[in-house]
Amino acid sequence: MSENKKKTILILGGLGFIGKNLVKEFFASDGYNIVIFNSAKEAVKGEEFLKKAKIYSGDFNNTTELEDVFKENKIDIVFHLISTTVPANSNNSGAIFDINSNLVGTINLLELMRKYEVNKIVFFSSGGTVYGLPEKNLLDQKFSEKSETNPISSHGIVKLTIEKYIRLFNYFYNFDYLILRLSNPFGEYHSSDIQGFINVALKKIINGAPVVVWGDGEVVRDYIYIRDCAKIIRSLVEKNISNELINIGCGKGYSINEILAMIKKVVGGFEVHYKTGRKFDVLKSVLDTTKLKSLIDYEITDIEEGIRNTYEWLLKNKVK
Amino acid sequence: MSENKKKTILILGGLGFIGKNLVKEFFASDGYNIVIFNSAKEAVKGEEFLKKAKIYSGDFNNTTELEDVFKENKIDIVFHLISTTVPANSNNSGAIFDINSNLVGTINLLELMRKYEVNKIVFFSSGGTVYGLPEKNLLDQKFSEKSETNPISSHGIVKLTIEKYIRLFNYFYNFDYLILRLSNPFGEYHSSDIQGFINVALKKIINGAPVVVWGDGEVVRDYIYIRDCAKIIRSLVEKNISNELINIGCGKGYSINEILAMIKKVVGGFEVHYKTGRKFDVLKSVLDTTKLKSLIDYEITDIEEGIRNTYEWLLKNKVK
Repeated sequence: MSENKKKTILILGGLGFIGKNLVKEFFASDGYNIVIFNSAKEAVKGEEFLKKAKIYSGDFNNTTELEDVFKENKIDIVFHLISTTVPANSNNSGAIFDINSNLVGTINLLELMRKYEVNKIVFFSSGGTVYGLPEKNLLDQKFSEKSETNPISSHGIVKLTIEKYIRLFNYFYNFDYLILRLSNPFGEYHSSDIQGFINVALKKIINGAPVVVWGDGEVVRDYIYIRDCAKIIRSLVEKNISNELINIGCGKGYSINEILAMIKKVVGGFEVHYKTGRKFDVLKSVLDTTKLKSLIDYEITDIEEGIRNTYEWLLKNKVK
Repeated sequence: MSENKKKTILILGGLGFIGKNLVKEFFASDGYNIVIFNSAKEAVKGEEFLKKAKIYSGDFNNTTELEDVFKENKIDIVFHLISTTVPANSNNSGAIFDINSNLVGTINLLELMRKYEVNKIVFFSSGGTVYGLPEKNLLDQKFSEKSETNPISSHGIVKLTIEKYIRLFNYFYNFDYLILRLSNPFGEYHSSDIQGFINVALKKIINGAPVVVWGDGEVVRDYIYIRDCAKIIRSLVEKNISNELINIGCGKGYSINEILAMIKKVVGGFEVHYKTGRKFDVLKSVLDTTKLKSLIDYEITDIEEGIRNTYEWLLKNKVK
């Protein structure tokens, strides 16, 4: 592909966990220029593939800093991965901060996209929080894109509300969108200490600390290996799937205790501390991925293999 | 009922159209003290029944002004009718104003309710805007409380988001709620010049001005006579229906042209100006009221009779 046919993608939050995996995945092809906008907090940790990207450090809620990126680059697609909250810290007094930073920030982003005629956004919503409590008597069901949405965290409500505004912009201004409701990704380049059970647990084990479990370990989640996730997203973009809201997960549920058993097979013994359950954790959250399967072909890595890859990567890169 | 058994209800926006009708309806019983909090803009127009209410003028977004009401009164139920936007002015640059005033304002209200241990809220959502575009091929269906929500105005998105936060507070703090998705109320005490087709049309006719119709008049809506609406709401409250989201409408659809024909029967001839349709008006919006019917017994006034009552009231009260 010749240089001037390359698409320029802007990855907001490109130095985060999912962001780095997307950068790596899109740079695996020669078809992309990548611009990253990220808060200054997360630094480049020497990843070779990031050197080809143009990196801006800035505050998502500083419209001037964000506008500079659009002024200086002709962007084709925006990948929006920035979130200033996680479910655990988004409730109570966190709700208004959540709204002001994430919701208002995203509307400002959409207005900038209009101004600079950027016509496509890929928004990273949250398959784990937008559905919230399952409808009564439907505990055995998976969440499809048409399921009711009853979030039990502000984080989930704000993600859902952003989805609605993106669809509003699509209706009025012909924005193309992809709204991706991701389950729980795990794998390489993860660095959070508060979100992402598998990675947090593996790091604790490497550091010789006990693994903390909220509740009895019977909470069921849908996990997806981040390299599968990145491939799926690149495939959706390259097949020009547009104006769709799509669940992305492995489509199977595993309890925390099942995950711990798999981790044990990979790393051997470790200590587990069970603490009181948290009210914002839904009991069961598994995604129905029928729609995704109908749109593209993709493979799902066996979860134990994903855990093994992640563990080896953590060891090799001495991640603490 | 003895004085100290009276319930004290706070009506936010109690001097507005729906507000005045609620005040009148609840004062028809002896069981209530009514406190009104309203912006200074809407003045009392000599309505006798308002004199028994305790009225505060203030800015909903000024937390101190709002807090004074809770400090000075032991409130049992909050009726939240305040909205700083209508669908027409909520899009474009109006979205952030909409979010800051209505959404953030309501979260501050919920926090004040927690602080002053007020445990029940009746929220006036919008049956006409939260559903938005009907699902494809479902144009003939009515919107039930379980229908998909795809608002095409920021107004509708913010109403929906407030619903989600109220349910979040219910989940965490045992707030009781009633979320009422009203269709298009019309009738006595209406004063807006920009919202409420039947009343606006009747006023134009009385003033000898042409009635303005956006589009070809084939847009279909569910209308409800405000006195029915007020009775329904009092009945829901007095039957202690709690933690429900309920459509309130007549459950039938009428096109603007059908409404015009009915108005003609009541008032005789008048001039109509058809203007270009507005994109934020959904083609058809009729509420499925099965749930409401299952909860309480109520009567729906014939729409032509409602129009006649409204017309006579407008004439008698010289409303311009």
